[in-house]
Amino acid sequence: MPTGQQLIQYPVPSYPPPESEDEESWVWTQIKAEARRDAESEPALASYLYSTVLSHPSLARSLSFHLANKLCSSTLLSTLLYDLFLNSLSSSPTLRSAIVADLLAALHRDPACVSFSHCLLNYKGFLAVQAHRIAHLLWTQDRRPLALALHSRVADVFAVDIHPAARIGKGILLDHATGVVIGETAVVGNNVSILHHVTLGGTGKVGGDRHPKIGDGVLIGAGATILGNIMIGEGAKIGAGSVVLIDVPPRTTAVGNPARLIGGKEKPARHEDVPGESMDHTSFINEWSDYII
Amino acid sequence: MPTGQQLIQYPVPSYPPPESEDEESWVWTQIKAEARRDAESEPALASYLYSTVLSHPSLARSLSFHLANKLCSSTLLSTLLYDLFLNSLSSSPTLRSAIVADLLAALHRDPACVSFSHCLLNYKGFLAVQAHRIAHLLWTQDRRPLALALHSRVADVFAVDIHPAARIGKGILLDHATGVVIGETAVVGNNVSILHHVTLGGTGKVGGDRHPKIGDGVLIGAGATILGNIMIGEGAKIGAGSVVLIDVPPRTTAVGNPARLIGGKEKPARHEDVPGESMDHTSFINEWSDYII
Amino acid sequence: MPTGQQLIQYPVPSYPPPESEDEESWVWTQIKAEARRDAESEPALASYLYSTVLSHPSLARSLSFHLANKLCSSTLLSTLLYDLFLNSLSSSPTLRSAIVADLLAALHRDPACVSFSHCLLNYKGFLAVQAHRIAHLLWTQDRRPLALALHSRVADVFAVDIHPAARIGKGILLDHATGVVIGETAVVGNNVSILHHVTLGGTGKVGGDRHPKIGDGVLIGAGATILGNIMIGEGAKIGAGSVVLIDVPPRTTAVGNPARLIGGKEKPARHEDVPGESMDHTSFINEWSDYII
Amino acid sequence: MPTGQQLIQYPVPSYPPPESEDEESWVWTQIKAEARRDAESEPALASYLYSTVLSHPSLARSLSFHLANKLCSSTLLSTLLYDLFLNSLSSSPTLRSAIVADLLAALHRDPACVSFSHCLLNYKGFLAVQAHRIAHLLWTQDRRPLALALHSRVADVFAVDIHPAARIGKGILLDHATGVVIGETAVVGNNVSILHHVTLGGTGKVGGDRHPKIGDGVLIGAGATILGNIMIGEGAKIGAGSVVLIDVPPRTTAVGNPARLIGGKEKPARHEDVPGESMDHTSFINEWSDYII
Amino acid sequence: MPTGQQLIQYPVPSYPPPESEDEESWVWTQIKAEARRDAESEPALASYLYSTVLSHPSLARSLSFHLANKLCSSTLLSTLLYDLFLNSLSSSPTLRSAIVADLLAALHRDPACVSFSHCLLNYKGFLAVQAHRIAHLLWTQDRRPLALALHSRVADVFAVDIHPAARIGKGILLDHATGVVIGETAVVGNNVSILHHVTLGGTGKVGGDRHPKIGDGVLIGAGATILGNIMIGEGAKIGAGSVVLIDVPPRTTAVGNPARLIGGKEKPARHEDVPGESMDHTSFINEWSDYII
Amino acid sequence: MPTGQQLIQYPVPSYPPPESEDEESWVWTQIKAEARRDAESEPALASYLYSTVLSHPSLARSLSFHLANKLCSSTLLSTLLYDLFLNSLSSSPTLRSAIVADLLAALHRDPACVSFSHCLLNYKGFLAVQAHRIAHLLWTQDRRPLALALHSRVADVFAVDIHPAARIGKGILLDHATGVVIGETAVVGNNVSILHHVTLGGTGKVGGDRHPKIGDGVLIGAGATILGNIMIGEGAKIGAGSVVLIDVPPRTTAVGNPARLIGGKEKPARHEDVPGESMDHTSFINEWSDYII
Repeated sequence: MPTGQQLIQYPVPSYPPPESEDEESWVWTQIKAEARRDAESEPALASYLYSTVLSHPSLARSLSFHLANKLCSSTLLSTLLYDLFLNSLSSSPTLRSAIVADLLAALHRDPACVSFSHCLLNYKGFLAVQAHRIAHLLWTQDRRPLALALHSRVADVFAVDIHPAARIGKGILLDHATGVVIGETAVVGNNVSILHHVTLGGTGKVGGDRHPKIGDGVLIGAGATILGNIMIGEGAKIGAGSVVLIDVPPRTTAVGNPARLIGGKEKPARHEDVPGESMDHTSFINEWSDYII
Repeated sequence: MPTGQQLIQYPVPSYPPPESEDEESWVWTQIKAEARRDAESEPALASYLYSTVLSHPSLARSLSFHLANKLCSSTLLSTLLYDLFLNSLSSSPTLRSAIVADLLAALHRDPACVSFSHCLLNYKGFLAVQAHRIAHLLWTQDRRPLALALHSRVADVFAVDIHPAARIGKGILLDHATGVVIGETAVVGNNVSILHHVTLGGTGKVGGDRHPKIGDGVLIGAGATILGNIMIGEGAKIGAGSVVLIDVPPRTTAVGNPARLIGGKEKPARHEDVPGESMDHTSFINEWSDYII
Repeated sequence: MPTGQQLIQYPVPSYPPPESEDEESWVWTQIKAEARRDAESEPALASYLYSTVLSHPSLARSLSFHLANKLCSSTLLSTLLYDLFLNSLSSSPTLRSAIVADLLAALHRDPACVSFSHCLLNYKGFLAVQAHRIAHLLWTQDRRPLALALHSRVADVFAVDIHPAARIGKGILLDHATGVVIGETAVVGNNVSILHHVTLGGTGKVGGDRHPKIGDGVLIGAGATILGNIMIGEGAKIGAGSVVLIDVPPRTTAVGNPARLIGGKEKPARHEDVPGESMDHTSFINEWSDYII
Repeated sequence: MPTGQQLIQYPVPSYPPPESEDEESWVWTQIKAEARRDAESEPALASYLYSTVLSHPSLARSLSFHLANKLCSSTLLSTLLYDLFLNSLSSSPTLRSAIVADLLAALHRDPACVSFSHCLLNYKGFLAVQAHRIAHLLWTQDRRPLALALHSRVADVFAVDIHPAARIGKGILLDHATGVVIGETAVVGNNVSILHHVTLGGTGKVGGDRHPKIGDGVLIGAGATILGNIMIGEGAKIGAGSVVLIDVPPRTTAVGNPARLIGGKEKPARHEDVPGESMDHTSFINEWSDYII
Repeated sequence: MPTGQQLIQYPVPSYPPPESEDEESWVWTQIKAEARRDAESEPALASYLYSTVLSHPSLARSLSFHLANKLCSSTLLSTLLYDLFLNSLSSSPTLRSAIVADLLAALHRDPACVSFSHCLLNYKGFLAVQAHRIAHLLWTQDRRPLALALHSRVADVFAVDIHPAARIGKGILLDHATGVVIGETAVVGNNVSILHHVTLGGTGKVGGDRHPKIGDGVLIGAGATILGNIMIGEGAKIGAGSVVLIDVPPRTTAVGNPARLIGGKEKPARHEDVPGESMDHTSFINEWSDYII
Repeated sequence: MPTGQQLIQYPVPSYPPPESEDEESWVWTQIKAEARRDAESEPALASYLYSTVLSHPSLARSLSFHLANKLCSSTLLSTLLYDLFLNSLSSSPTLRSAIVADLLAALHRDPACVSFSHCLLNYKGFLAVQAHRIAHLLWTQDRRPLALALHSRVADVFAVDIHPAARIGKGILLDHATGVVIGETAVVGNNVSILHHVTLGGTGKVGGDRHPKIGDGVLIGAGATILGNIMIGEGAKIGAGSVVLIDVPPRTTAVGNPARLIGGKEKPARHEDVPGESMDHTSFINEWSDYII
């Protein structure tokens, strides 16, 4: 039983990994070290950590196991999903590299993320995105009914609804993630951070290209609704609760319902940082609202 | 194993069904044809499709089976729910007809909906509404504790929270559905489309009639919050993210937080189409926001 | 089988309990009476009511059993969680007293709450908060990996995401609850009512104290987003869908996106009631919006 | 919690039922009275008794529910089995009448059987025989793969292996039942009692009629092995552990390995009682063994 | 992954425990050491070993957890059984002492038993006996329906059928255990070893005292059938496959079907050893059978 | 729904396979053809047949899936077992060849075996032997705790208890299988047939080589008990219920309790056929018993 004293701090090698090691191996080594440390300090969790992490020879198998047990149901058995996930991850270095990039994104951008294993095991946004990557792979292989069934399980279990046709970059952080909806023809660039309740939605019942395109490094605040085949430019920031129906230029900030550009549409203020990475949610406040007490 | 080539396209009879056939039978025939096609093209999904669709003699039994397995828990067994659902659906032609209307609504209004079976199996909004219909039937039979237990399961499993006393019409589309909340005294008309995160909420802690009344053919955009015993007129449209606390006239559009009527409250713009069916989410934009780049 | 006639109304002793009895025992006695009444009127639910309520000798054990069966997974077994929950509740009178206060809050403030057992068994907000209380206890005992694993299960199962480090008072009502997100350094006072989709979020990727502080008796409407280390004063009210980035004074009302104070920031209107208890969501409307038809 | 005092004894109507009532209704009424009494005296079992007995309107549905939950697996879902069992029992009065006869047999012949509900819920021999009856019905309907799958589940779960083609009479008691094996062409008459580890086996690898025929009222002791297409005459008794390879005349007793007839094969002793009903296992001992101390 | 080399042999303290330690603590310390060693050498089993052994603070809790997960069903939940088992074991030092005695018996008498944890986790005979001890305690507390339900689960899961009224001593080894049947009025002394398929059965349908009484130190070989209220004297041995219907004197050997005493009934051979502990199954062979090639 | 008419008989290629095809592929092709035929004729079983057979690309994966779902428990997850089984079978052509030999043995020797898929899916003896083969492989790789855990699951689920150290040949038929016990140092040759309740047991508590050695082609009848390090010669036959404690010469028949050789020990009758393949259980009867009516 834990006795309340400080957790023993194991030395964790600092990022980036030594040049001699590839990133995936390095991250996996970290994850196993974290899980081993936690298993030792908390016997009640050791069984969980062994089954999800420590009994596996690779990150791909650990994730396949964990996702399969999260997403299985009485009519879609865990063994079937495990097999499907492991085969997908094993055959696609691109998928595996995106997983690693997402783990790094969570650890770098979310101060509440205490370790790689914390993200791997507990972040529904991370898990939903990885399941989406596999569903998207199936979609591109014309295995659409299976992709849609997987999509449905992710929407039930994680309350994250990403259409399997949507194209998502790497280094993605879905923070908190509940309620995120990303439509069929949406495209999300690299290093994008999206908070919960964000919608990248369509405009009507006509098919075709009808969902937003999100540039690299964009930050989209909680509850923002972005509708239609519009472009959110590289490095732009969308304030929490905003409703955005038209393009947003790169490195600008759109806030409010209806959204307006900070600085005005003629000459919007431009920022230097990459909000999807800096995660600055609120620095625009002085320029936005006259409600300053 | 799928080989990546085009899915074989089976001929699907065009809608509406021939006069010689009733709608429920016709839709069920389509669903079985779709499931059979998918089972053949995707062996990994065949077991799922047989257990959920192809082993059943009727739509009512297929849906009862599928819902029971989705909503069961260790303390509410699937056999109990299956029995309850099947008895409810078997005894109520009204329920069965509403199910068919909802399937047609999804296929007609949502361009991402590729087939009836896609909706039946995968749409959490569709499934939550059908479970609500049964809970509502129990409520009207004074089986309230059971209705509330079912309500609770739907809220857990689908993150869709419809009070069993709420009255819901037919031809309903809950698109994406996560986070929808519909209160005890709410009424929703026919052919209404409601996006995710929509709230039809009350105004305080006093009981009685305190939730919105939604007319036929209304479209409510993602994240809209409608509070109080107010009337959203037939064919009205509520923009995404709007907060609506007072009545909205028929065939008008309310947008923003606080919501205002497009065209002004004195002489609001009126549209001809039925937004709940046309699903036009964004055509008001030029009239709404001065943020046009 | 229920025959459709009126439910038999058992006499329920009126609140508050007689002075001779402590509140926890009194509430537990009510819950058992309610469950017994429902089991008699609805045989289909009797098994559920016996397993969750009537077979248990105390509220702590009933809740531990119910939560364990809700939150367990194939890798976190119900017996482990049951043991953990029961030990936590048994050793902490503070936890048990908060549970009782939350039950009373739901029954007093939510007109849709028909009984204590309705809240205990069916309210995902109530259940998520109690699971959070246990996770927070673990956090303060430096059992952080276990607290985070529990946090993750609550976020999956109830779509309620409360960081285990957040400090939450008693007499809390999370109404509907889906999509609530409360960050690591947030503090919530006593007798607060929070609707669904509410965010108490941070401001960026820098750690430290970065989340809102919510005073006693505050009411936060559906979909409100409150960001940053700001103070929402005692008895304040935040309108549905509001986006709040700066302090709100006590007993005032902030609404809109961006939020403004009703009455103006210089001399905001002050109300006498405690909104967290009165649950008045919409009385500000005349002063807020010029959209009055 | 039970307090150790005497169980309250509810008046149980004596057998046989009044002429005004059919036997099936009468037995079902008894079962419900027993279950209600036990649920009241033992809260820890009440949930179990409500789910298996008290929530059901008929013996057929109670048994279908109980068997389905016993025999289901991750690949043969309980809802499927429940449906199959309920349909079989509902359509066959013969099956239902045999169930009642078997319940009466257990209560009359086994002194350890304390009630009908004890047999219905707990006797693996009773449950295995009822599952066999359904499998046999399927067999005769040429639904053989399903009959064999059910056979396999019974062999796994109860360790009772009755080929679905075997014909079994009514009023059967399989006492303890573990290890009973009854082959494809075996026939068992009415009012037969068979102890555990009994084999009614074949003689080789040639198909055709190759298993024993057991007359009415036969008693077969524990561990007896009866091989080949031989006749065990009406009212005969087979001693425990006997190995029988040739016919046994009616009302005689065969014991030993190899079995011999008590009284000698020329003029075997004949008994008046029906051993399958009297359950006299050992009265032959003086005539059988010279090992009397 | 194990690499096929020798398992690391951790030093195991030799039996008996030092006087300074009580036996239960000492055995539990051994079990944890064994489990830790196995978890380290076999990652695929570590999760299992942590959940069943290493996460628990006592033998009573480990066994309660393991038995509850083995014996639970969809209608008898693991949490209910866990609670029942833990309460029974916690309140009864006699039960806990019998558990320890049975663990020692297995390790001393069965050469295939490699460790205490091997017996605790894997021996169905050991587990069935411990479940019986709890069922027997319930029986003596007049909680008979619960005792019989537990009896039924043990018979299903382990194929071991011990009536809850039967009285069983300590230091019992049920080796292999499948098919053991022990009737309602049977009594089994201390340090008895019973092989699989052994029956201690009754004689007919009359109630009352009708099952065998087995003295201390008796060994009963595989498949032996002992029927009636007879006495198997202290230290007697019953050969495999024997059928015994009359008393067997102390320290003698009965073999065959029908059984006879080695040495003849007038002057049977008497042995000095205690067969229940020496486990000598076959030394009588020269005196028993003339079939010596 | 099946309509009772004759099952459509698909042409099944006759054994042996064409020389152009290896046996494993040929058997797998048969199994898939059988499963497809059964799925078409019995929709209620189609889901089961797709999940267990038709969705898999190889016999090894089908069997791994089926066994994993049969043997998993709440503490040994199906995904873990699936992975373990699939890796074992994939890496060992010897194992796969033994599986095929056992399937052929069942189909050739058991007239109740109607198809390969019948054996693969439903024969607990077949499944227990394949699980043993994997446990034995683990044993030889010094992964003993895992081998013993698997052994324990097989003993619980199938009531078949084969120590993982026991060496078993190929072409094995365990008919009915319930209650079979095979000890640690037993060796079983090729083409052996063993009925249910058969024990190959040890002689005492001393370790070392202490279990029977069974020659090729032996047939062991139901309930036979063979004890000690003795040799049952090639092609011998052991009658049902026999107790054998000394060697049995090749091609002879031992029957009875105690067993004696047919024809006498000096000049025992020798048969030409191979009983393990001919399955002749009872031809010795005239020479064995004088009880011929």
